[in-house]
Amino acid sequence: MTRIQTQALAAATAARAASRTLAHTSTADKNAALRGIAAALAHSAIAARAALLKANRADLRRAQKLLAQKTLTSATLARLHITDAKLDAMAAGVLQVAALPDPSGQVTLESELDDGLTLRRVTCPFGVVAAIIEARPDAVVQLAALMIKSGNALILKAGAEARDSTRALVALLRGTLLASGLPEDAIVAVEGRQAAQALLALDDQIALVVPRGGNKLVQYVQSHTNIPVLGHADGVCHVYVDAAADPEQALAIVLDSKTQAPATCNACETVLVHRQIAPGFLPLLMDRLLSAGVTLHGCAATQALAAGRPVAPVEAWHTEYGDLAVALRVVDDLDAAIDHIHRHGSSHTDAIVTRDAAAAQRFLNEVDSAGVYLNASTRFSDGYRYGFGAEVGISTNKLHARGPVGLESLVTYKYQLTGHGHLVGDYASGRRHFRHEGGIAQDVKRSSDEPENR
Amino acid sequence: MTRIQTQALAAATAARAASRTLAHTSTADKNAALRGIAAALAHSAIAARAALLKANRADLRRAQKLLAQKTLTSATLARLHITDAKLDAMAAGVLQVAALPDPSGQVTLESELDDGLTLRRVTCPFGVVAAIIEARPDAVVQLAALMIKSGNALILKAGAEARDSTRALVALLRGTLLASGLPEDAIVAVEGRQAAQALLALDDQIALVVPRGGNKLVQYVQSHTNIPVLGHADGVCHVYVDAAADPEQALAIVLDSKTQAPATCNACETVLVHRQIAPGFLPLLMDRLLSAGVTLHGCAATQALAAGRPVAPVEAWHTEYGDLAVALRVVDDLDAAIDHIHRHGSSHTDAIVTRDAAAAQRFLNEVDSAGVYLNASTRFSDGYRYGFGAEVGISTNKLHARGPVGLESLVTYKYQLTGHGHLVGDYASGRRHFRHEGGIAQDVKRSSDEPENR
Repeated sequence: MTRIQTQALAAATAARAASRTLAHTSTADKNAALRGIAAALAHSAIAARAALLKANRADLRRAQKLLAQKTLTSATLARLHITDAKLDAMAAGVLQVAALPDPSGQVTLESELDDGLTLRRVTCPFGVVAAIIEARPDAVVQLAALMIKSGNALILKAGAEARDSTRALVALLRGTLLASGLPEDAIVAVEGRQAAQALLALDDQIALVVPRGGNKLVQYVQSHTNIPVLGHADGVCHVYVDAAADPEQALAIVLDSKTQAPATCNACETVLVHRQIAPGFLPLLMDRLLSAGVTLHGCAATQALAAGRPVAPVEAWHTEYGDLAVALRVVDDLDAAIDHIHRHGSSHTDAIVTRDAAAAQRFLNEVDSAGVYLNASTRFSDGYRYGFGAEVGISTNKLHARGPVGLESLVTYKYQLTGHGHLVGDYASGRRHFRHEGGIAQDVKRSSDEPENR
Repeated sequence: MTRIQTQALAAATAARAASRTLAHTSTADKNAALRGIAAALAHSAIAARAALLKANRADLRRAQKLLAQKTLTSATLARLHITDAKLDAMAAGVLQVAALPDPSGQVTLESELDDGLTLRRVTCPFGVVAAIIEARPDAVVQLAALMIKSGNALILKAGAEARDSTRALVALLRGTLLASGLPEDAIVAVEGRQAAQALLALDDQIALVVPRGGNKLVQYVQSHTNIPVLGHADGVCHVYVDAAADPEQALAIVLDSKTQAPATCNACETVLVHRQIAPGFLPLLMDRLLSAGVTLHGCAATQALAAGRPVAPVEAWHTEYGDLAVALRVVDDLDAAIDHIHRHGSSHTDAIVTRDAAAAQRFLNEVDSAGVYLNASTRFSDGYRYGFGAEVGISTNKLHARGPVGLESLVTYKYQLTGHGHLVGDYASGRRHFRHEGGIAQDVKRSSDEPENR
């Protein structure tokens, strides 16, 4: 084992031990720690703020040089920059997590299997969650708050550009945990790409990995670990403008979906237009998009309708432009639109604009995406807008959580069975019979009392 | 691409197409197909039965030879053997699945985000599920029934020993689907180890893999695919006999947990005994286990108390004997027992026997296993005994399903949002505000209407 692997294992082991304490810490105590963190980040915590901003300035100085060398983007620099306003927002975010219901310890099923034999399904934390994030100081605080509330310990590996800021934030978080009587190792940080690799190998210690960053980071994490990954790589979202669309509504929805925040994962990347309305609708749409500064790519039919407007060819339909650029395609009908979405999409969020109820229902039923929308912008695909409060990210997985991932998806469950000396032999022999009262599927009895899994 | 890879991809593509039809087939039509399958398997379907039994005899003849060469166990032969009674049980099992509620199409959340903007979370099938199973004809029928009911297409790869039986069963299943007006490609089979490998690489087509078989098969599947795997490799279950245990109850629970069906995954493999009661209790337990034909392994303290009884040393605590054999260990206290379970267990099912309510509560809260039991046999860990009806298997995953996996875990969900031209820009600018009525977390509002995921 290399030194870095040993350090990663030690961090994970410490976090695992802390997670066992955190798992049975009361909601009140977890909320008190969260309020402590919010207070430490707050406007009134002058010394703490000064320390954070000083650490952040060290990161910013290095980032400025990288920006000049063009090895860092201005978007990264902006995300890295901690301002008083951002610290206020972080503190407010932590208080909002404190106000959310505790997802752990919920009884989701209770059944009397027989007299004195009671089964309960109770939600409980995963244990240790690793977060591999880019240089995003605000994500450090948000993830820490979500993990504390859900009772999970957090191992954090953040982008090197945010080294000093992350160290300062983690010191603040750990200090507040300790002062609140919670184990400080509920939040541990490791540094460097090799440490990230070492974490991804610890599938015995780490229950879940949350990547936060661009496609490349997420794809790297997904392909380098056996630990379940909660997140999404691509956001190739579609708006399909049906023959029965209200044209003005369609124009507004496409513009909002594409331009309201073009770099986000739920922004629209491809607009599909029914052949029947394309001659009238597409020129209008092209004008509106071009006026909004959007670069256009299009299929041959779109180019034929462009009448001199600049429309580049499409290199690949599965492209997340992540910018003011969009692909336009004329499709024969609803089936062709659904087929295009299944073939080239990322199962993130896809919308139909139509006044035809039958077409709408087919689209909502048949399109196999985490979000399927009727007459609404794809940009609504977000935990806050869905009313879930804070979120970990958006999942395009099919297992566990799909779509915006909130606190309720940061727990698993266990079955607690309490008996008074109950034996399976008594049921196998027919001396006793299950009652299965309450819970689910109580009306189903297997013909034999002697089934086997293996 | 090799020929086998091309065939596997073709099978998966056919299944994916069928799954899209099955996903919006009504519950009534799915149940009718299930009743058709039960009828085809039933006592009265003389010709179908004769064909199945004839195919099975071909498998049995080959298996007999392998048994003579000792390359096949008698347990495998017994599982392979299709009898009239087994066909009756298969038919009854399919009818039971037909009687279970449809897990798909359930609305699990409904929220008015704003006037005319309605969010619904609706359960839906995964798409295509691959099952890699050993030579188990009854599992073919059970899995097919669960997948049809949940609306998933099934790609099946069964052990070569059951080749003819599997072919005959799959032909029966596909024929019945076709006769019921459902797509026959909702069930497709591939043959051979290379085909299994090819399936495990199809993470774009297959949403989930269900392995059914021994540890080696499950471990092979888990380590050779990026597709989520629903199942468990190990079942190293524990019974901890606390200082405050009722000795007679403890003896009965250990005996039932170990001997009632020693080859099952929920059978007990290690008994932990509190030091305080070990001198009185362990000799009694050893006698009872030896009388039941159980081979004993033990720690030094156990061996010291054996007084001539045969107690072999323990080679590794993480051992699934899967037979009439058990490991015995004396532990200092509850903490040592919990620590042993976390260090050497498989997070499957673990039990405490005690009359001490505080010790019981700590064990149920702190032991991080899918099943945590008080004064009951570990053998209760089973979907039927829990009242879930038919089950896919038992999961020791933490994501998605944990413990016995029933129909309700064979679906994911999608978010359906229906609006009337709603745009995110209106909320970002403050012209409109979310109401978030109904659903969850409705009392939580983020301070800004402009959050971002990326």
